[in-house]
Amino acid sequence: MTKSTAPATARRLLPDAPLLLAARGERPNRLPVWFMRQAGRSLPEYRELRADQPMLQACMTPELTCEITLQPVRRHGVDAAILFSDIMVPLHAAGVELDIVPGTGPVMERPIRSASDVMALPVLEPEALEPVAAAVRLLVAELGRTPLIGFAGAPFTLASYLVEGGPSRHHERTKALMHSAPDVWHALLDRLADLTLTFLGVQAAAGVDAVQLFDSWAGALSEREYRRFALPHSARVLAGLAGTGLPRIHFGVGTGELLGAMAQAGADVVGVDWRVPLDVAAQRVRAARPHGPVVLQGNLDPAVLLAGWPAIEAQARRVIDEGSAADAHVLNLGHGVLPETDPDMLTRVVELAHSR
Amino acid sequence: MTKSTAPATARRLLPDAPLLLAARGERPNRLPVWFMRQAGRSLPEYRELRADQPMLQACMTPELTCEITLQPVRRHGVDAAILFSDIMVPLHAAGVELDIVPGTGPVMERPIRSASDVMALPVLEPEALEPVAAAVRLLVAELGRTPLIGFAGAPFTLASYLVEGGPSRHHERTKALMHSAPDVWHALLDRLADLTLTFLGVQAAAGVDAVQLFDSWAGALSEREYRRFALPHSARVLAGLAGTGLPRIHFGVGTGELLGAMAQAGADVVGVDWRVPLDVAAQRVRAARPHGPVVLQGNLDPAVLLAGWPAIEAQARRVIDEGSAADAHVLNLGHGVLPETDPDMLTRVVELAHSR
Repeated sequence: MTKSTAPATARRLLPDAPLLLAARGERPNRLPVWFMRQAGRSLPEYRELRADQPMLQACMTPELTCEITLQPVRRHGVDAAILFSDIMVPLHAAGVELDIVPGTGPVMERPIRSASDVMALPVLEPEALEPVAAAVRLLVAELGRTPLIGFAGAPFTLASYLVEGGPSRHHERTKALMHSAPDVWHALLDRLADLTLTFLGVQAAAGVDAVQLFDSWAGALSEREYRRFALPHSARVLAGLAGTGLPRIHFGVGTGELLGAMAQAGADVVGVDWRVPLDVAAQRVRAARPHGPVVLQGNLDPAVLLAGWPAIEAQARRVIDEGSAADAHVLNLGHGVLPETDPDMLTRVVELAHSR
Repeated sequence: MTKSTAPATARRLLPDAPLLLAARGERPNRLPVWFMRQAGRSLPEYRELRADQPMLQACMTPELTCEITLQPVRRHGVDAAILFSDIMVPLHAAGVELDIVPGTGPVMERPIRSASDVMALPVLEPEALEPVAAAVRLLVAELGRTPLIGFAGAPFTLASYLVEGGPSRHHERTKALMHSAPDVWHALLDRLADLTLTFLGVQAAAGVDAVQLFDSWAGALSEREYRRFALPHSARVLAGLAGTGLPRIHFGVGTGELLGAMAQAGADVVGVDWRVPLDVAAQRVRAARPHGPVVLQGNLDPAVLLAGWPAIEAQARRVIDEGSAADAHVLNLGHGVLPETDPDMLTRVVELAHSR
């Protein structure tokens, strides 16, 4: 794939899917709901399947990826499946040596910190992602009328893992690189934008119905840094998908100060964590992008799911009420499902959303 | 100490100290500057002293506490010393069984999760803090005209450690407790406010010139949660110190959405992390508390200190410019000094601040 070619799409027509209607700013007849990390450790059937399967292997085994992705759709009746994957998958597929260490996260064999490190980064060929494409095709065949959301990490977040060599609390080497060697930084992010666009392009061509670009760590940046060092590269990824017509969801944690900038990066749907009420988030997105519908996704605190149903119900109703300030709302959490979550609580949130 | 007695203070008169002038909203003839965690792992002389001294022992050995506190004052010429301590010190002094594990942080022998756990929390007697008082007295004698800032963790942050049993990324058990059992939550925070007030009261009586209340984890809360579950208890601590006349600095990380509420909690100086520019922070604090001076502390990103002097200088000058939007500004970082920091960069930031 080259930068100038819009990815193809095998998109199905799902004219009544609440998620897809909401993503266009319309009000579907039922509030769409799904959960970040809905396919994961909160489900006993997931833990059983993953017992002896390393993460990256599970992401590159189509039947397993398909089954894990379907589990929460069957169990909770959510309005979308999200492709089971990991933000490291495209780097792994390109040949970057890394491991996902349980309890720690992704660990790089060799951190990327110089211009020559950047030049040596392998290019991702779409063929290397065939297992991902195969999983998407299996899912599209199985899912019926439930849309499938594709998945990728944003260039800044990938860069943080590559520069730090693993998960980081302070992102200090990442920030030191961007401030001390902006040319090296932008060359790195440019390559990662290509890689991300290839990853999402393969998913689009195989049939996903929407995409979510996760910029997990963007909230570590000030708005000034985000606009200078991260936004242009996320914007290129999101613009590169415009030709597919797929709704583009963009999310990060702790990004209250960045919501307007993330909307300007080209998101159709802006994901919001629990720190900013959705009515406030709607004002921020509308102020930053006055034309076009304001569509928000979020923002029930995943920790509240551990507080018992009365608290969960009260908070979910508040989120739904506040979400009505947007032109459309996709109910979700403000971050991923925590492993300790009782999955029945998720099912009840879906029922609550659908009863309104 | 009882709730109704204002702590005594052995405060020196330091009428020209830039930090103390700024804390009252006046513009001193030189910009005051100090660094959170200035006494710590960035200094080789600190690493040498701490080599075979566990953290809590170092905090309870007056001569060692004094020497560690003085090191950055000697080396950098900062405008304040901050008492070398740890937010766990008052819990440790009260007899709560805990350990500070290098590389991990504080780990509790028994987490606090029920009403009976709360009832069983020991009360902190001021006498148990005699080593801290002795360290303060030594410091006041050594410091000359440099003010000494006292130190405590805020009730919410202490509660998170107690409920989770250690450091936590998501604070899920803490939030589950506050939402599912608010009576237990408030009983716990009430006890922790007493403990914090005792800890700061002992420091005040021994002679500190200002206090900083760290609510390290407050940024994990939405403003609604902060106002309901954390602010009342921090406010009681800060109000309990009003009679001492000591300036009260209040700081948390990721608290952009909470700056107004934290000012309303009773802070004379609001600490700001790097995510929100100081001119924006000044607007937020002024809007929330229209009467009285707006005094801000911060907010150079500690990661920028690893990016080399040209980047550090540019960012420090920007922070100083933006700080002029407040009635007064105390230059500091937006979080603690990172261990990898070259201490010479800190010295140069002090020189830059003092050259203006």
